[in-house]
Amino acid sequence: MNPYQAPLADMKFLLERVFDAPTTWESIPALAEAVDMDTAAAIMDEANKIARDLIHPINRNGDEQGVRHQGDKVITPDGYKAVYDQYAEGGWVGLCGEPELGGMGMPKMLGVLVDEMAYSACNAFTLYGSLTAGAALCINAHGTDALKQKYLPNLYSGQWAGAMDMTEPQAGSDLRNIRTKAVPQEDGSYLISGSKIFITGGDHDLTENVIHLVLAKLPDSNGISLFLVPKINVDDNGELAETNGVTVGSIEHKMGLKGSATCVMNFDDAKGYLIGKPNRGLVCMFTMMNYERLAIGIQGLGTSQAAYQMAADYAKERTQGVAAGGSPTGALSDPILVHGDVRRMLLNIRCYTEAGRALSVYTGQQLDLAKYGDGEVKSKASRYVGLLTPVAKAFLSDRGLDAAIMAQQVFGGHGYIRETGIEQLVRDTRIAQIYEGTNGIQAIDFLGRKTTGDNVAALTEFVTEHQHTLATLESISDEQKAQISSRFEALLRVANSVNDNKLAQPALINACAVDFLDAFGHLVYGYFWVLMADRASNHEDAQFAATKQHLAQFYLAKLLPKVDYHLAQVSAGDATIMTMDESLF
Amino acid sequence: MNPYQAPLADMKFLLERVFDAPTTWESIPALAEAVDMDTAAAIMDEANKIARDLIHPINRNGDEQGVRHQGDKVITPDGYKAVYDQYAEGGWVGLCGEPELGGMGMPKMLGVLVDEMAYSACNAFTLYGSLTAGAALCINAHGTDALKQKYLPNLYSGQWAGAMDMTEPQAGSDLRNIRTKAVPQEDGSYLISGSKIFITGGDHDLTENVIHLVLAKLPDSNGISLFLVPKINVDDNGELAETNGVTVGSIEHKMGLKGSATCVMNFDDAKGYLIGKPNRGLVCMFTMMNYERLAIGIQGLGTSQAAYQMAADYAKERTQGVAAGGSPTGALSDPILVHGDVRRMLLNIRCYTEAGRALSVYTGQQLDLAKYGDGEVKSKASRYVGLLTPVAKAFLSDRGLDAAIMAQQVFGGHGYIRETGIEQLVRDTRIAQIYEGTNGIQAIDFLGRKTTGDNVAALTEFVTEHQHTLATLESISDEQKAQISSRFEALLRVANSVNDNKLAQPALINACAVDFLDAFGHLVYGYFWVLMADRASNHEDAQFAATKQHLAQFYLAKLLPKVDYHLAQVSAGDATIMTMDESLF
Repeated sequence: MNPYQAPLADMKFLLERVFDAPTTWESIPALAEAVDMDTAAAIMDEANKIARDLIHPINRNGDEQGVRHQGDKVITPDGYKAVYDQYAEGGWVGLCGEPELGGMGMPKMLGVLVDEMAYSACNAFTLYGSLTAGAALCINAHGTDALKQKYLPNLYSGQWAGAMDMTEPQAGSDLRNIRTKAVPQEDGSYLISGSKIFITGGDHDLTENVIHLVLAKLPDSNGISLFLVPKINVDDNGELAETNGVTVGSIEHKMGLKGSATCVMNFDDAKGYLIGKPNRGLVCMFTMMNYERLAIGIQGLGTSQAAYQMAADYAKERTQGVAAGGSPTGALSDPILVHGDVRRMLLNIRCYTEAGRALSVYTGQQLDLAKYGDGEVKSKASRYVGLLTPVAKAFLSDRGLDAAIMAQQVFGGHGYIRETGIEQLVRDTRIAQIYEGTNGIQAIDFLGRKTTGDNVAALTEFVTEHQHTLATLESISDEQKAQISSRFEALLRVANSVNDNKLAQPALINACAVDFLDAFGHLVYGYFWVLMADRASNHEDAQFAATKQHLAQFYLAKLLPKVDYHLAQVSAGDATIMTMDESLF
Repeated sequence: MNPYQAPLADMKFLLERVFDAPTTWESIPALAEAVDMDTAAAIMDEANKIARDLIHPINRNGDEQGVRHQGDKVITPDGYKAVYDQYAEGGWVGLCGEPELGGMGMPKMLGVLVDEMAYSACNAFTLYGSLTAGAALCINAHGTDALKQKYLPNLYSGQWAGAMDMTEPQAGSDLRNIRTKAVPQEDGSYLISGSKIFITGGDHDLTENVIHLVLAKLPDSNGISLFLVPKINVDDNGELAETNGVTVGSIEHKMGLKGSATCVMNFDDAKGYLIGKPNRGLVCMFTMMNYERLAIGIQGLGTSQAAYQMAADYAKERTQGVAAGGSPTGALSDPILVHGDVRRMLLNIRCYTEAGRALSVYTGQQLDLAKYGDGEVKSKASRYVGLLTPVAKAFLSDRGLDAAIMAQQVFGGHGYIRETGIEQLVRDTRIAQIYEGTNGIQAIDFLGRKTTGDNVAALTEFVTEHQHTLATLESISDEQKAQISSRFEALLRVANSVNDNKLAQPALINACAVDFLDAFGHLVYGYFWVLMADRASNHEDAQFAATKQHLAQFYLAKLLPKVDYHLAQVSAGDATIMTMDESLF
């Protein structure tokens, strides 16, 4: 039921009219050669078919059947392997990979939209490819040429998969405490020993090899280094050789994402290869983490879109009660979409989802400029990527859960029944707020490192630029502009106040970070809404234009005011949070 | 892990000092005879043992094993039957039932606390007894003496169970559309035929009989009547006789509450007995519904308390990172309770939970006064029960889900693992926002019927009384009082404005009801917090007093301001919600 259909018109609108992708792409030789709007549109059309016709059909059974651990094998649900093969053959895993090593060289700005479609279709399945692409990105950024040549082509092609091995039982959010050891060998390799938990795609039957990126400590060092550790060794000809000391201890029983193999991984003198410099593993891992953090935000976004479609379809079909003031058609029962509370929920989901997609595409654009751009273009984009990554991860995944829960509410009692499928979205997307750094940690990164870490320089730059753009929007009223611009000013005031007090009140950032991120997220979504309303104002499809105007008005009236609440919370400080003695909890 | 322990000191504090239960009980002859604070304390101590040592141990396995439908039998998880027998033998099902028919005659003000303990221990198990008590309440209020004599003793004793059969596939929120038929027989009974879905405790192996309260239509009538339909007929001596035409079609596969049997029930010429007057079934059913609505709110409250205990325990044990500004003990890793964001989440859960318990006890007190009181005491209490029931159902269950999700966040990745148990709370409590009337419907009842239905009379009466009490609180500063009282005034202004516009804007109530209920809930919790802080100010346990002051300060600084956001949303009206054309969704 509820077959997924990508919102292609909205996606193309964002690329072409809101963020002017063609101009960005033409400005970058590597992208100008690879992509234009026609190519991008064709890729999106094809991705929609893959998501809708291949991936979505395996979603429900994957949840019911789950992953099984039999003997030393991890077996994915029926259909996963066949779909993965087609997905890999289509080149989707390497969509944004380097062309000289077999990737398709597409911009991330397009990649985020393809990722969203896949996550909408099936959270659990999509993680396998996402982790693989992230591992490839990290190897490409920090690996030696030899490692790149040996591993990247088979990762981009989807023939092998990737995994990220960080967490240990005593070392989760705080990786300083990892105990996995790496002992250098005479041939330049290392022997890795230790145990990792919560390893997404740690092992499975989709690919013949899994390439682990493992955090471990060198002898007599407290620094953390990063190692490439294949499940099966690869010989000098690039062929699979003997198995490595990499085994699955068990698979986790989880709330959701049951088609995704979450493994306890044991490394027992497993051969590994250093990635990047010794003791600089976290820096390298962060290349992958930042990529994964955006991807996990997009998991939330994809969930939101799927939730919206299911709930909107249901609200149009399900009849119950009549409209306040009488049925518009004189029927005894109207579709529940006539009810204000149902509309409120749907508009809520939709406004967050469409603005979230704008955040996703904008962040993708900054990633492209940071990767391919030159000079100040590159460095400014890098600052914006730093600023926006924690927001995209946390705000998109928080809104993803909200969307799934609200959509479930639209379904009433049927929403609690497994067969309906909406409760699976709640369970699947819940993890996105937790893994790859909890959303609390994202918020602390945003307020502590990204905002006050440079004394509010990057945030001021970002706000100033967007205040400028806001002033140029011709179809937006001064009153609507003022709703955004006055809040941008308030945001900077509060950020500067936190910055001024951060030394005197060391707990301030940790205690107020979530509210600050929520304020920024709600505000930047408001900015995106007026931008979208403006860019749609001359759209040739009058209904499309009208829809964007309606949604922007709803957002500004109903959701933007949350900025004020969250900023007031930051201003209220940490006193009531920190003073209660530990024993009283 | 995380054995449940009822917050007995907080519970006794609410009864004795905040709401002065002894005075209420002494004022009512039937209660003065049955209970005083010593008896109540002894009952709570015993209930805590039952919840902690009997009910909680079957919670996790019940979720894993679920209910099974084998042949014509519905089999509850291992342990349910044995625990239910002990629970029933202890008289807990009939705790607030009529003493002359075997109930214990205890006040609801105490009953809500016992209910909370049981829901904290296990949501799914507790529903069986809760539905039974609700059915007994309805039969007692509307049944003939013969029906009461025949059915109530075995319901109070827990020997038989109760169920409420309302929903049909085409008739959920809108019961006008039910199709189940009742055909009168010469002996005064009826033959009931039809199919009902989502029937909690529709059948199971805990008791030898299940007494259904079934909504059905008489021939040639569109009115709805209520019938008592036993699974097994009961002869004139009160003995079980031949089976009735009542069968289980299937059991639902749900997101959670897996130990609770949610059944499709088929009635095929089943013998039934009219409860109340013909075509007045909804009125009778609302007696049970109102009871169940409070109970379902308490399901959310019990979940909140369990979630808090688990998360607080974990936050004290789990070490990760060090405190901002350096470890207070010089350790390399501190308990995560040192982190502001973790404290923020725990304080959030705790403040909502303790104020929620105050709402629960206060509502229980009004139920007792409405049942046992005289004259104006009785009628005022009835008005307050009407006003507070939808709030208790919706606001307590909404906060229950929030609490479970926030507690899960405190657990990080471990919160997503089934064995930890916190994700079960999320799944189990999610339904509380949906069943017994969705929380949207509760809000529409609150704003439409209870607030503007009498032109804001009951709400004005409620606010006026509590503004008075607020003014008398000696230990509360004028500034804190003003934070509450100014918002009470704003609430009435907004309520009167909706009342003035309700005819001109027929969609206004439906579209803005949830925000109005949320505003009221946050405000009345703020009132309860200053009341609790005041009543605790001279508590002999200085730590107890200090905790309440801390929590009240946190609530007023961090959560009370949400009132302003929600009231502004109501004031923003329904325009942006209702104008978008259906085709654009």
